[in-house]
Amino acid sequence: MMSKQAEEFNAYRSKMNEVILEKDNLVLKRLFNLDTQTYQDGALNVKTKEMLGLVASMVLRCDDCIKYHLEKCHNEGCTTEEIYEVFAVANIVGGTIVIPHTRRGAEFWESLTGGK
Amino acid sequence: MMSKQAEEFNAYRSKMNEVILEKDNLVLKRLFNLDTQTYQDGALNVKTKEMLGLVASMVLRCDDCIKYHLEKCHNEGCTTEEIYEVFAVANIVGGTIVIPHTRRGAEFWESLTGGK
Amino acid sequence: MMSKQAEEFNAYRSKMNEVILEKDNLVLKRLFNLDTQTYQDGALNVKTKEMLGLVASMVLRCDDCIKYHLEKCHNEGCTTEEIYEVFAVANIVGGTIVIPHTRRGAEFWESLTGGK
Amino acid sequence: MMSKQAEEFNAYRSKMNEVILEKDNLVLKRLFNLDTQTYQDGALNVKTKEMLGLVASMVLRCDDCIKYHLEKCHNEGCTTEEIYEVFAVANIVGGTIVIPHTRRGAEFWESLTGGK
Amino acid sequence: MMSKQAEEFNAYRSKMNEVILEKDNLVLKRLFNLDTQTYQDGALNVKTKEMLGLVASMVLRCDDCIKYHLEKCHNEGCTTEEIYEVFAVANIVGGTIVIPHTRRGAEFWESLTGGK
Amino acid sequence: MMSKQAEEFNAYRSKMNEVILEKDNLVLKRLFNLDTQTYQDGALNVKTKEMLGLVASMVLRCDDCIKYHLEKCHNEGCTTEEIYEVFAVANIVGGTIVIPHTRRGAEFWESLTGGK
Repeated sequence: MMSKQAEEFNAYRSKMNEVILEKDNLVLKRLFNLDTQTYQDGALNVKTKEMLGLVASMVLRCDDCIKYHLEKCHNEGCTTEEIYEVFAVANIVGGTIVIPHTRRGAEFWESLTGGK
Repeated sequence: MMSKQAEEFNAYRSKMNEVILEKDNLVLKRLFNLDTQTYQDGALNVKTKEMLGLVASMVLRCDDCIKYHLEKCHNEGCTTEEIYEVFAVANIVGGTIVIPHTRRGAEFWESLTGGK
Repeated sequence: MMSKQAEEFNAYRSKMNEVILEKDNLVLKRLFNLDTQTYQDGALNVKTKEMLGLVASMVLRCDDCIKYHLEKCHNEGCTTEEIYEVFAVANIVGGTIVIPHTRRGAEFWESLTGGK
Repeated sequence: MMSKQAEEFNAYRSKMNEVILEKDNLVLKRLFNLDTQTYQDGALNVKTKEMLGLVASMVLRCDDCIKYHLEKCHNEGCTTEEIYEVFAVANIVGGTIVIPHTRRGAEFWESLTGGK
Repeated sequence: MMSKQAEEFNAYRSKMNEVILEKDNLVLKRLFNLDTQTYQDGALNVKTKEMLGLVASMVLRCDDCIKYHLEKCHNEGCTTEEIYEVFAVANIVGGTIVIPHTRRGAEFWESLTGGK
Repeated sequence: MMSKQAEEFNAYRSKMNEVILEKDNLVLKRLFNLDTQTYQDGALNVKTKEMLGLVASMVLRCDDCIKYHLEKCHNEGCTTEEIYEVFAVANIVGGTIVIPHTRRGAEFWESLTGGK
């Protein structure tokens, strides 16, 4: 079952992606497709790639991207302990400036796991 | 006619600029003036400069700056197709990390154009 | 007396720090401790270090970090004139992209000082 | 005629692009193609798009990207006055942190134009 | 056997780390220790953590950090195909601005693997 | 007496500033002036402002800017212990991604102080 926070987040994302894609800009369309393709199973599995996407989003400090990859990581069966090790890498590489984003990420993770 | 979202955004900006400028910090005052001067007609016209300001704001991922330049671009007669080509450059140069800002920019652009 | 904006900000920070720290990730725990230690009195005094933390947070454009250091600077007796000189350095080094964060920082500073 | 600095820069870029592309990573291949496509004539002309790419590269402070777009801008007939207006937008938006990159960009521009 | 490029890189790093650490700044010393600790075996294994460090370094565009993690990844037995999937995530999330760093990373990877 | 590394650095900076300023772009000229003005004695003294400029340059990871402010800090009588406390703030706020820049900064500081 999806959390309320995740639902609202997904609804806005879907609505605006539609607005963007209906403008028929070919570069944006292809980039959106390429984005999906990037995280597919390959030499690295989906779970690893989603954790890569998560840590990249954290050090670049993009709250929406963090939420997006947290949800995917949750779907791939990442444990809380694993997620917090990704958080640790992000905070060490990116510094304390990442902490506020870690707080919001942690809140979103609690909403996905029910705090378990 | 200005959209509600644009109005609120402009009201907050004006109020806080006033708070900042009344503190009489000379460097900030001059930087604010210089900022205005930067986008004036020169070897490049205002429309081109505002698109430059827009793409720079997008890759630096500053939502308020994006809105500011979108409004200026709208005043300069940029078409939706042109704006989406600026969006495309920003997303290719800056990566998918720019997508969430593109969503909010697209929403603001719809509010300016009435989705037309 | 703490402002309402500062109170809410601190409450959320405390609540989420607790959520994070109870996960017992050793790296995050030690980084949080190290963060506190960084701003303690040394060859440079606390006031100077908090201004360093403020300017770093501004050029990296982290609103929560800006608020955090503004509150500390206020506790250390920084004057409005001093804070605006820190704002000036941040805006010159980091560019006009810092202005929206300066607006929100200025608003928070008003809430701490009562606009005095 | 190409400058020596531009020649060396292009030789390294070509050699390493070949190394990267022969690894047959589909995502990277498509991104490289998409990159080329982004700057093609459309609602905005090539010259405008290259200036957009230049200003984005400057505020993100990527020397190689700056050189790449400067060369393209030169091919599109940008004047020195126009390029310096792009430099001005980049330095105002991105701050004095962009100045060292502006110096190296200016040096490269001189090598392209013969300082004329 | 270490490549010449890797050897020179490591020698400079060691020499300067020594200069830094002999100044006895406690915060820097502890951060350096914490950095080492972050990549140790835990819920995630060392190989995964080093790939996380690599992708974070790429989107933040730090050539030295990229080299450092590439060497660690090589020691952990990452294949060229896996490394290029990390490169792909970094370039999609971080955009074409990451390409010049990918070129230098690819060159360093060739020096580690002998291009095999 | 200036170190060789500092001399070469200053010579390139002066030469290229001249190239830039002779192009008579008013915005760039005024920004260069404003930059000088920012670090002048005010509510905060020059030494404090130069340390603010240093920490901002470090977290934004601009080697040339770091060198520039290190030289100014040296002129203002900053001790090695003080400089390393600025380094500590920068590394904690900005993360381990700042370490390579700290190494180069430390090397430059040694060249200014003769390692004393």
